[in-house]
Amino acid sequence: MSDARRYFDLPSPFAMKRGGALTGARLAYETWGTLSAARDNAIFILTGLSPSAHGASNADDATPGWWEDMLGPGKPIDTNRWFVVCVNSLGSCKGSTGPASIDPATDKVYKLTFPELTLEDVGNSAFELMRGLRIGKLACLIGNSMGGMSALGWLLHHPGSVRAHISISTAPQAQPFAIAIRSLQREAIRLDPDWNDGNYDDTHYPEAGMSIARKLGVITYRSAMEWVGRFARIRLDSETRTDEDPFGVEFQVESYLAGHARRFVRSFDPNCYLYLSRASDWFDVAEYGSGHVAAALKRIDVERALVIGVSTDILFPLSQQQEIADGLTTAGARVDFVALDSPQGHDAFLVDIPRFGAAIARFLATL
Amino acid sequence: MSDARRYFDLPSPFAMKRGGALTGARLAYETWGTLSAARDNAIFILTGLSPSAHGASNADDATPGWWEDMLGPGKPIDTNRWFVVCVNSLGSCKGSTGPASIDPATDKVYKLTFPELTLEDVGNSAFELMRGLRIGKLACLIGNSMGGMSALGWLLHHPGSVRAHISISTAPQAQPFAIAIRSLQREAIRLDPDWNDGNYDDTHYPEAGMSIARKLGVITYRSAMEWVGRFARIRLDSETRTDEDPFGVEFQVESYLAGHARRFVRSFDPNCYLYLSRASDWFDVAEYGSGHVAAALKRIDVERALVIGVSTDILFPLSQQQEIADGLTTAGARVDFVALDSPQGHDAFLVDIPRFGAAIARFLATL
Repeated sequence: MSDARRYFDLPSPFAMKRGGALTGARLAYETWGTLSAARDNAIFILTGLSPSAHGASNADDATPGWWEDMLGPGKPIDTNRWFVVCVNSLGSCKGSTGPASIDPATDKVYKLTFPELTLEDVGNSAFELMRGLRIGKLACLIGNSMGGMSALGWLLHHPGSVRAHISISTAPQAQPFAIAIRSLQREAIRLDPDWNDGNYDDTHYPEAGMSIARKLGVITYRSAMEWVGRFARIRLDSETRTDEDPFGVEFQVESYLAGHARRFVRSFDPNCYLYLSRASDWFDVAEYGSGHVAAALKRIDVERALVIGVSTDILFPLSQQQEIADGLTTAGARVDFVALDSPQGHDAFLVDIPRFGAAIARFLATL
Repeated sequence: MSDARRYFDLPSPFAMKRGGALTGARLAYETWGTLSAARDNAIFILTGLSPSAHGASNADDATPGWWEDMLGPGKPIDTNRWFVVCVNSLGSCKGSTGPASIDPATDKVYKLTFPELTLEDVGNSAFELMRGLRIGKLACLIGNSMGGMSALGWLLHHPGSVRAHISISTAPQAQPFAIAIRSLQREAIRLDPDWNDGNYDDTHYPEAGMSIARKLGVITYRSAMEWVGRFARIRLDSETRTDEDPFGVEFQVESYLAGHARRFVRSFDPNCYLYLSRASDWFDVAEYGSGHVAAALKRIDVERALVIGVSTDILFPLSQQQEIADGLTTAGARVDFVALDSPQGHDAFLVDIPRFGAAIARFLATL
């Protein structure tokens, strides 16, 4: 746990979109920079499915964050100018209340008794944090991947609460390819006998299911093109291989996936994963536009927006970023649409800091 | 089992690329049309991973085959003119000898004692069938997907045995994205406790692993674009849903995947799947060109070639089809390269018969 982590108690009960409510729920968050006297320089960051609130190192926690090169003094999101808040999503297991938290009503871990979670709940809870910090209006709301959907949920539910929006590699609604991938990830976890309908523990833990889910994630987060250059057909050293297993790891790309899975499996709670993954499938702004994405986006009220997508992203394709940019333009915002050729696919916003940082810095400089 | 199925006894022992040998092995195949007196009108079809030799209905078996609209009298591969042979791959479980067959040395099912299988073995065994049918030279060798790799293996090992070649949605070598997908499919099977190191039976059978493997296959065989039009975000009728399961199937795309998995799980042997999948990862024509794909392809000796690929294929990208076309051109063949915009991705050759059929008919008419 990061020393820099702060907690915000959500209004209790916190009502959720699909009818549930949370008592005594909280959000974990971290901050960088200083809120101005006018309280008008706040930027909120809503994250993808797995990251914590530790976006970057700060005074309280020097360990590098998941957006270390993007966020800090003199960096693209310059904390000399902006007061930046990174929020751990409601439903996650990195400090915010989620299926892995204790239910105060029973003193037991929620597991599958956690109420049905939507990304609108994630957005609404982050909005409550803004109010709790006595900020009337954000200078900018940034959402990456799943966080981009949560941000659209926020914007639809709270008009007038955000001046500018940065939408990164996200979607106005889950498309069937992304649904298929996520559904299969959930199935891999649920089919693991150690998942046990959510009643696992450290001894009986769905390692195999989580490993498959993570590997499938990594495959779809990157791009085939990048991997041709990066791994080609390079094989592991014969010493590294386990020759007893006739179907064991042989190629570097397999070892790369195994490393990702190993680091993830025990660091993210499987039930939280299931809840957030399902929430992503459910997300559809068209619900706010009589079944039409464009009509829904037209209701969003921001002055300025930057919409960034990557041509090699197979999970959140560029066409969906274009759809968001078009919708916000129709809504009256002045929109910069940036289509990047980063080879890294969906994950490019995490690793292609030269391209993403330049676009974000340029946009923030105009605010 | 199809009544039309014929069997060919491979020369025994049949030596395999990685050192193994098979005793008393056989290939299943089916034929359409009549071999000419000059024995010069034969076309061989090598298939993808899962199809049987039943490419189309014929006099002995009226059930539709997997390429029903492509193959038959008056169809693009016109059996009024051509004598067509479709081969079930060595290592498969549709009549040819594979890991699910009885090892004559032990009278037990091979399972994982089956020798290491490569796609060159698949190609070489099909070549032996050609010789067994007393055909000196094929008019045309057609390979789809995995069968396209097996065909390249044949061509590299048996110069002068084929006049024309049709290469469809395949690869001169497995690239890391495809390796990653197949490795994960194999892992899902192997992690299923019922796989039991290959020692499953009908009662304890790796259903879950096979289901995940198949779903991942179907996801990567099709294209995101096609699914937007086909499934969008349509949900199942509430009656069809199993509401007891909070993470159960909700969207049509999930039900589509479940249907594919259901039909496949018990109809393809898991160990055969593992062997053929691993063989696809191993395949690399560069082995025949001092590490270079182009140098290897340059050694292939055919007069004419048609190379077809699809822009939406994420598993066997168009760039790999271009690579084959370029290599065969350098080798001195007259090559037609056809890049199709079929929306169906890798599977387009199975379903977009209008586009594929036209290209194949046009090419065959020039022979």
